[in-house]
Amino acid sequence: MIKVGIVGGTGYTGVELLRLLALHPQVNLQVITSRADAGTRVDQMFPSLRGLVDLLFVHPDEAFLTQCDLVFFATPNGIAMQQARALIDAGVRVIDLAADFRLQDIASWEKWYGMTHACPDLVAEAVYGLPEINREKIKSARLIANPGCYPTAVQLGFIPLLEAGVIDMGSLIADAKSGVSGAGRKAEIPALFAEAGDSFKAYGVAGHRHLPEIRQGLAGVAGNEVGLTFVPHLTPMIRGIHATLYGRLTREVDLQSLFEQRYRNEPFVDVMPAGSHPETRSVRGSNQCRIAVHRPQGSDTVVVLSVIDNLVKGAAGQAVQNMNIMFDFADNTALNIVPLLP
Amino acid sequence: MIKVGIVGGTGYTGVELLRLLALHPQVNLQVITSRADAGTRVDQMFPSLRGLVDLLFVHPDEAFLTQCDLVFFATPNGIAMQQARALIDAGVRVIDLAADFRLQDIASWEKWYGMTHACPDLVAEAVYGLPEINREKIKSARLIANPGCYPTAVQLGFIPLLEAGVIDMGSLIADAKSGVSGAGRKAEIPALFAEAGDSFKAYGVAGHRHLPEIRQGLAGVAGNEVGLTFVPHLTPMIRGIHATLYGRLTREVDLQSLFEQRYRNEPFVDVMPAGSHPETRSVRGSNQCRIAVHRPQGSDTVVVLSVIDNLVKGAAGQAVQNMNIMFDFADNTALNIVPLLP
Amino acid sequence: MIKVGIVGGTGYTGVELLRLLALHPQVNLQVITSRADAGTRVDQMFPSLRGLVDLLFVHPDEAFLTQCDLVFFATPNGIAMQQARALIDAGVRVIDLAADFRLQDIASWEKWYGMTHACPDLVAEAVYGLPEINREKIKSARLIANPGCYPTAVQLGFIPLLEAGVIDMGSLIADAKSGVSGAGRKAEIPALFAEAGDSFKAYGVAGHRHLPEIRQGLAGVAGNEVGLTFVPHLTPMIRGIHATLYGRLTREVDLQSLFEQRYRNEPFVDVMPAGSHPETRSVRGSNQCRIAVHRPQGSDTVVVLSVIDNLVKGAAGQAVQNMNIMFDFADNTALNIVPLLP
Amino acid sequence: MIKVGIVGGTGYTGVELLRLLALHPQVNLQVITSRADAGTRVDQMFPSLRGLVDLLFVHPDEAFLTQCDLVFFATPNGIAMQQARALIDAGVRVIDLAADFRLQDIASWEKWYGMTHACPDLVAEAVYGLPEINREKIKSARLIANPGCYPTAVQLGFIPLLEAGVIDMGSLIADAKSGVSGAGRKAEIPALFAEAGDSFKAYGVAGHRHLPEIRQGLAGVAGNEVGLTFVPHLTPMIRGIHATLYGRLTREVDLQSLFEQRYRNEPFVDVMPAGSHPETRSVRGSNQCRIAVHRPQGSDTVVVLSVIDNLVKGAAGQAVQNMNIMFDFADNTALNIVPLLP
Repeated sequence: MIKVGIVGGTGYTGVELLRLLALHPQVNLQVITSRADAGTRVDQMFPSLRGLVDLLFVHPDEAFLTQCDLVFFATPNGIAMQQARALIDAGVRVIDLAADFRLQDIASWEKWYGMTHACPDLVAEAVYGLPEINREKIKSARLIANPGCYPTAVQLGFIPLLEAGVIDMGSLIADAKSGVSGAGRKAEIPALFAEAGDSFKAYGVAGHRHLPEIRQGLAGVAGNEVGLTFVPHLTPMIRGIHATLYGRLTREVDLQSLFEQRYRNEPFVDVMPAGSHPETRSVRGSNQCRIAVHRPQGSDTVVVLSVIDNLVKGAAGQAVQNMNIMFDFADNTALNIVPLLP
Repeated sequence: MIKVGIVGGTGYTGVELLRLLALHPQVNLQVITSRADAGTRVDQMFPSLRGLVDLLFVHPDEAFLTQCDLVFFATPNGIAMQQARALIDAGVRVIDLAADFRLQDIASWEKWYGMTHACPDLVAEAVYGLPEINREKIKSARLIANPGCYPTAVQLGFIPLLEAGVIDMGSLIADAKSGVSGAGRKAEIPALFAEAGDSFKAYGVAGHRHLPEIRQGLAGVAGNEVGLTFVPHLTPMIRGIHATLYGRLTREVDLQSLFEQRYRNEPFVDVMPAGSHPETRSVRGSNQCRIAVHRPQGSDTVVVLSVIDNLVKGAAGQAVQNMNIMFDFADNTALNIVPLLP
Repeated sequence: MIKVGIVGGTGYTGVELLRLLALHPQVNLQVITSRADAGTRVDQMFPSLRGLVDLLFVHPDEAFLTQCDLVFFATPNGIAMQQARALIDAGVRVIDLAADFRLQDIASWEKWYGMTHACPDLVAEAVYGLPEINREKIKSARLIANPGCYPTAVQLGFIPLLEAGVIDMGSLIADAKSGVSGAGRKAEIPALFAEAGDSFKAYGVAGHRHLPEIRQGLAGVAGNEVGLTFVPHLTPMIRGIHATLYGRLTREVDLQSLFEQRYRNEPFVDVMPAGSHPETRSVRGSNQCRIAVHRPQGSDTVVVLSVIDNLVKGAAGQAVQNMNIMFDFADNTALNIVPLLP
Repeated sequence: MIKVGIVGGTGYTGVELLRLLALHPQVNLQVITSRADAGTRVDQMFPSLRGLVDLLFVHPDEAFLTQCDLVFFATPNGIAMQQARALIDAGVRVIDLAADFRLQDIASWEKWYGMTHACPDLVAEAVYGLPEINREKIKSARLIANPGCYPTAVQLGFIPLLEAGVIDMGSLIADAKSGVSGAGRKAEIPALFAEAGDSFKAYGVAGHRHLPEIRQGLAGVAGNEVGLTFVPHLTPMIRGIHATLYGRLTREVDLQSLFEQRYRNEPFVDVMPAGSHPETRSVRGSNQCRIAVHRPQGSDTVVVLSVIDNLVKGAAGQAVQNMNIMFDFADNTALNIVPLLP
């Protein structure tokens, strides 16, 4: 049984952490903070948690986070980097669901996120929390940079191809589609139902913060810089990311077997049968990533379809998976969830 | 550990049973039948179940259902009534998620369902599976008539008022709204996304099959016939029923306290704080019914808001709850699910 | 050809006015104001208007509204009441799409809208712009209080019954469902796609600002106070209101004929054949109200189904209809639109 | 004034033709056929047309189509090819909204559509009805093959690049997303709201019938075979196609200017300002195609975003545009429609 705290619990990654941790047999949820909603019952804001979470939001200044074994930051970018040092020095392990520790290149981070990094020294120590790449490092990590949602779906789809060195690394394309919850629980006009409903659009074509994160991850796998075009789109659904990935094959390979071998021991990556078209709803509410690999018309273009629930494998679920690994619980503890279909 | 079979597993109540039973610690799912899809892997039709359900659909003639302890019928109306007798005689307990055994009045049933009843003698024995009313009878039942979705939401909202005798029984109104999954997994034009999306309509105003079921249930509680106007509506969402119920108060009563007392021992009925407006998503994927009671503007009209997930408390979840009661498992075994929000 | 101005053009009623006026053959759209977005091209904010509206938003202080023949206020409540007097004194006719002039009882208005009325003397002069009731007064009106969306759908459904005196005026029920655009183009969390999508809820059961407006209108028709319970709901679609209305019949009447006679000369009220269930999408984008009247199971409860597009007949379309009447254009000028289905 | 008939009017392209033709000042709609629904009033099936279309569906055998000046086929594939010859010989001009005359290579057509072509001689005569390419030929055509929805969006996006010869023709990628109405008004499970709602998936990755149509069109423009990977996706909205197109630049060019020049005289192609992200709703219900062109991060990959309403520019609207050109009406007659936003 470990003592867990959550900083910033009123967004979608926060409530999703609560959904998962509420039934975790090894977790004692001690505290959840909110600056704006301190004093409010958690289940008043999120009635789905009635009877399951008996806590009030606590002001950050009154949250005794150093008594926790682990603290999740489900905060906007720029918060965790101010508080992680003190916690880690106090022996608390930290998982940041925001982007503060994701980019090893501080200058790049500061350019994309538009602020000065408050804690560059911890960046070097932080482990990028993609278990399918960094499982061993995660076990002993004091600080986890939990991956972004797009980066998770895109990297898991490209990794087998890059590791095997079978595609041209200079011309990768990731055409990704996200549900609206990816924009967070923020009062902004473009995310209104009447704006985002019954419509589809690309955004951030000129540049999106997840681009350098994906590039860094893929370069790590490939051992070299990669050329990547990344186009995110907003699709009128609540949860889910569908990444459609394109690469140019440079030599013959049994693609189906390549993917199946790569992920045969990963509990949360499901390589579907050849010819499959994974739907985002097939992972709704669960920590699964489902992948299918195609080579249409026998051309030299490989097409990978990769779906996740952006709030689970793309955020809170992956964070819990990381926690499970860090504390030597089974990977799927509290994550043994059947996707909600329909 | 009990042996369980499902007849007719390719509809929404079937796949929902699978979702719930897949993680039930006391259930060994033996067999699932489908006439049309015999030989198909279950997880090929429903990829959400990959890794969780390792079965093929079996032709009904080849399903050795008599070896089960319990069989669920997730079939269209008119199937269970043909097969229940043989199973019960063989010592198998039966839960019918369709309507075959819901109406005690055979003539009424035959009128509303447009067929001759194949097994009227079993109707008298069948227990209407609303645990909040019939918990004791369910324990020893051989045959459960699992309630309809609308009837569950409507009855749970009216029961405290009728039991207490505080409203006029002759002028009840139930204005109910259902998500599209209530129409089942059937290839019909009105249920297409392009037809039912971004639109709202009433249907069946002249008469709906759930009307006599609700009337029978409420009459049983009230001890007398009730006058009920029931108007169902189709709303552009997948899951959920919201029943808005109207009654005329005939004497003063503390409504909030009345409801809280009535359901204080029921694990799956949540009376929300005074002034609440339950959302259907607050029960998405879970077996909860959430209820709020209002008396707007201090008039003599009481307004009850009652929400359920039509596929869970309105179908498969209630069926599992009934099974749990029948076999003396804890009510919430395999039903301890946090609603999926957002 | 008349000169028209719009105050506050960045909300949904504003852009809807622009959609309708852009093709109006008698309207010269002179100016559209926005405090926050002055200097922005209208078609930059609303690309649907590219090639159709060649204007910039103008700061209110620089908009020469007194040169217009007519000014629409598509502003939040409380703005028109501050500016209408000066415009009317300058000979400009005014249509307020907000609520400032809807309630004749100033005290009631101030209670429901939470502010002091800036211009009570004009309230008495204002004509409530429901053409089906006030066509003659609208013709010569200087100031129109354009009705609310719910009040339009509810009143049009009850009017024939109340005028004919065939229902109990003390026990009316209006169970109304609205699409999300009814909440306006405002950055608020409950209207986010991820909050309002795939869910259904009631709101404002204790009291909604449209309640006194509906009561006032129905009392005017009935010649007496009415008892009304009004429960609005939020439904996951963009446009559309569906009002389900309940009344107790006090004497026999041919309901179908009553409705058909009442509206036989109204171009924008369509009484559907007996037994119909109007869908909101059957009026999507158009100024039609479609109504069906039922008497389920031969009981004494009459059920009226009334649907409108909340942004058209419930707002901008009705405003244009009022303008057409005021300036002696045909009612359907620029409103001869085929609903968008599917 | 021309006499017009529609064969097969009960699908989405049929009702969309009716929406557009109902207000066309030069069209006298004479007859609309339906085998299954002969005798039914059109406005009973589509209440949105009440008061606008006063016709019954007529059995094909009783429809005197030879008296028409023009006949639209809004039928499934394989019907028009059986009837076009007789009509054309009788002097009736024909626009086929299905695929019967789209592919010049008969063998390819028969492979992709799985039937023997009934009228190969007419294929050679048929004009592919993309006005932006074939305006002159359309003027005098007797038979128009109206383009598919995906092919319209994809070709309009690639044409300027291919005509200018600035991209590698061997590595084109079209990642396209369609609303559900693209599947037609057919009773099929995958198109149900409860299946297609709140989910996203690719389909037909191995091969889609629109692939050879797009390749043929692009080859015609490029003067050479092109290498194209085409991946269609289903997105949970009713109308709209968003094509995201990728090409590798082979020489420097002012992309924005290239596109603006190419389409400066086309009334239904709108090249948006540099940096734009067109939304499908910005063309909802209208015949516009909106395009934006990007070159992200200054790389050699050009990204084109192209949106249309699949039922308008992707089907019925383009058919009406073709008719307007054929009969020398202004292109935008009856197509001067403001998109419905929100």
